[in-house]
Amino acid sequence: MATDDGYLVATYEIDGHHDPFKKAKGIAIGLTVGTWTELPQEKQAELAPHLGKVVDITTVSATADQPAKAHIKIGYPVRNLTPDLPAILTTVFGKLSLDDNIRLLDLELPPQWEQHFPGPKLGIAGMRERLGVFDRPLLMSIFKQCIGLPLVDLEKGYRQQLAGGVDLIKDDEIFFQDEKAPVLERVRRFKALNLQREEETGQKAWYAVNVTGPSTTILDQARRVVEAGADVLLLNVYPYGLDILHRLAADDDIPVPVMAHPAFAGAIQGVDSPLLLGKLLRWAGADLVLYPSPYGSVALPRADALAIAAHLRSKSVHRPAFPGPAAGIHPGMVPVLLDDFGHDLLVNAGGGIHGHPQGAAAGGKAFRDAIEATVAGQSLDEAAQESAELQQALDQWGVVQA
Amino acid sequence: MATDDGYLVATYEIDGHHDPFKKAKGIAIGLTVGTWTELPQEKQAELAPHLGKVVDITTVSATADQPAKAHIKIGYPVRNLTPDLPAILTTVFGKLSLDDNIRLLDLELPPQWEQHFPGPKLGIAGMRERLGVFDRPLLMSIFKQCIGLPLVDLEKGYRQQLAGGVDLIKDDEIFFQDEKAPVLERVRRFKALNLQREEETGQKAWYAVNVTGPSTTILDQARRVVEAGADVLLLNVYPYGLDILHRLAADDDIPVPVMAHPAFAGAIQGVDSPLLLGKLLRWAGADLVLYPSPYGSVALPRADALAIAAHLRSKSVHRPAFPGPAAGIHPGMVPVLLDDFGHDLLVNAGGGIHGHPQGAAAGGKAFRDAIEATVAGQSLDEAAQESAELQQALDQWGVVQA
Repeated sequence: MATDDGYLVATYEIDGHHDPFKKAKGIAIGLTVGTWTELPQEKQAELAPHLGKVVDITTVSATADQPAKAHIKIGYPVRNLTPDLPAILTTVFGKLSLDDNIRLLDLELPPQWEQHFPGPKLGIAGMRERLGVFDRPLLMSIFKQCIGLPLVDLEKGYRQQLAGGVDLIKDDEIFFQDEKAPVLERVRRFKALNLQREEETGQKAWYAVNVTGPSTTILDQARRVVEAGADVLLLNVYPYGLDILHRLAADDDIPVPVMAHPAFAGAIQGVDSPLLLGKLLRWAGADLVLYPSPYGSVALPRADALAIAAHLRSKSVHRPAFPGPAAGIHPGMVPVLLDDFGHDLLVNAGGGIHGHPQGAAAGGKAFRDAIEATVAGQSLDEAAQESAELQQALDQWGVVQA
Repeated sequence: MATDDGYLVATYEIDGHHDPFKKAKGIAIGLTVGTWTELPQEKQAELAPHLGKVVDITTVSATADQPAKAHIKIGYPVRNLTPDLPAILTTVFGKLSLDDNIRLLDLELPPQWEQHFPGPKLGIAGMRERLGVFDRPLLMSIFKQCIGLPLVDLEKGYRQQLAGGVDLIKDDEIFFQDEKAPVLERVRRFKALNLQREEETGQKAWYAVNVTGPSTTILDQARRVVEAGADVLLLNVYPYGLDILHRLAADDDIPVPVMAHPAFAGAIQGVDSPLLLGKLLRWAGADLVLYPSPYGSVALPRADALAIAAHLRSKSVHRPAFPGPAAGIHPGMVPVLLDDFGHDLLVNAGGGIHGHPQGAAAGGKAFRDAIEATVAGQSLDEAAQESAELQQALDQWGVVQA
């Protein structure tokens, strides 16, 4: 019998009131074979391959701001569970999540389990190839208004955003009903507008459509919108559960990237953000991940925002995904943004495009000019001499110094 | 056009640093029509049915322990969304969950939307009828060990638990793999043991089997275990997402109750427990709900544990569900438990049954005797004169005074 066919390793932070050694041993036994020391020797031999193990314990001393803490790493034999995220979450943070003062910081898959998770369908290189954009971050615009508008209004808004040269335009994540603008109709019309722009300018564009409805029909819904021409699916991952993302990403009949929206993720405070919005979403198959930037009013700590991007793009058996740190981003922020996050990035703007004094088309153009200047090593002030739209944006929002 | 076709009302707690009036108005507009004051009058008329409204604002003064807070109630027109829990969570606590210092306290459905959610399939009365237990709380026992054991060991454990007179026996929520004890085989064998006991004693028993695997196949899996004879399905609701519970409960081919396990719910700290483990689970269709009792080491505040039970059993269009507050429960606690939670209750014990000095069968009997005595208004000490098993339990754990 194999003695080690792989462990799923979870790292937890527990507070200093626990004895970390006792706590760690309690988890390793309690969440695997249930009981150990009282078992007869032959039962121990039988159950040994199923027994969890304490991989590491690190105590963190108290500081003025923080009480003493410990980080404990527990290895769970993967033979105990099935290779899906509900089983993983239930095992490593099911009952344990209900403990006081314990947080799930990280998870590591054993090599033989990585293949069970699809990872991004296209990855950064695949999306760049399909979109024809190789040398700069992607630029995405978000509808300012969706709900209650007739299709003709949405089309008008779509045209304005397209005109500025954005690469993607996405639905609002709260856009569900479509009596006035049925989703398949939206996909067809916006696709036509994308193709029209491509014909006129050579630049492709993608519409990211929100896939919604019951979890029992969401894969069918995804296939229908893809058939109608959708280039990207937007998914509210945590309201559905990570496994729905996994199944969308693993479905060969859905050959388009999935963009993960962070809706509801802020409610899940017991799991560290880089795991929740970085690693888990990449395993489950998000190609593009939206999450709070460190700049806006809805802010993530800078270290967490960078760690999410690192998880999405690190060397791995899974293709890398585009990080899309959003909120508080305007053209004058582009140098800071690219300095912080690099060029394999989804620049994602709502107010920073629609709030341009000359409207959304000028807002998109200002962003594109800021991005191209920054990538070329040119200052924004210099670039603004050639771009009235960028100058207007800088007048409005200023330049944030890197 | 109808001006009011129903609002989904969400109650939030925000901290005192926000201006609650401004914040509430920002949510009501921002998470519905997106923009308002700058719209021309005819657009306002068109979008008015889609505009959110501020229903109530209550400020809570600072105390020595607590900073100032406000409770705000926002009404979202249900015409903006589809009647499913992912749409609800995304709308009311999608982006908003990422705000600092905001918690979702409560949700209220408009009457015309209640029918869109299945609620419990059988409800308390239906389960009592099917199980033939009318005049006392139900008693459930939890396997002490599952993982890695061959079916013959599990059967032995099942027999011992059955012998004590428990009504239900449940899988551990982390029991997924079944190489040694395939799930359909477990269901068939345990069902046979249930029927055997019924023949011998007249008392029915149910086995609650964990339904697991990909969310795309979990309904088929549920149908298969039901076909094999499963009486109750156990579901790790939050690792899957509430909508999977909804679809299991709404499926007519799955005519058995669903028991909700609180796995991972402790990670969702941004949502108040009575909503998360009470109201939402009842809407989605849980017939029995396990959650932390106020007595154990994994504890919920007493007020929250009682509020969960109240949500599960309150007057509603949906059938009531059994609350199953678990952890720290032994026979000597039964008077307190029934005093706190009433008789429409699932008494749920692991250590309190298996830890009995004479084993699990005696542990179950001690519980049954404690329950029957308490329901009959007899003291445990009195009842223990007729029950050696109860006396041994009281010697071991003591009597907790109500």
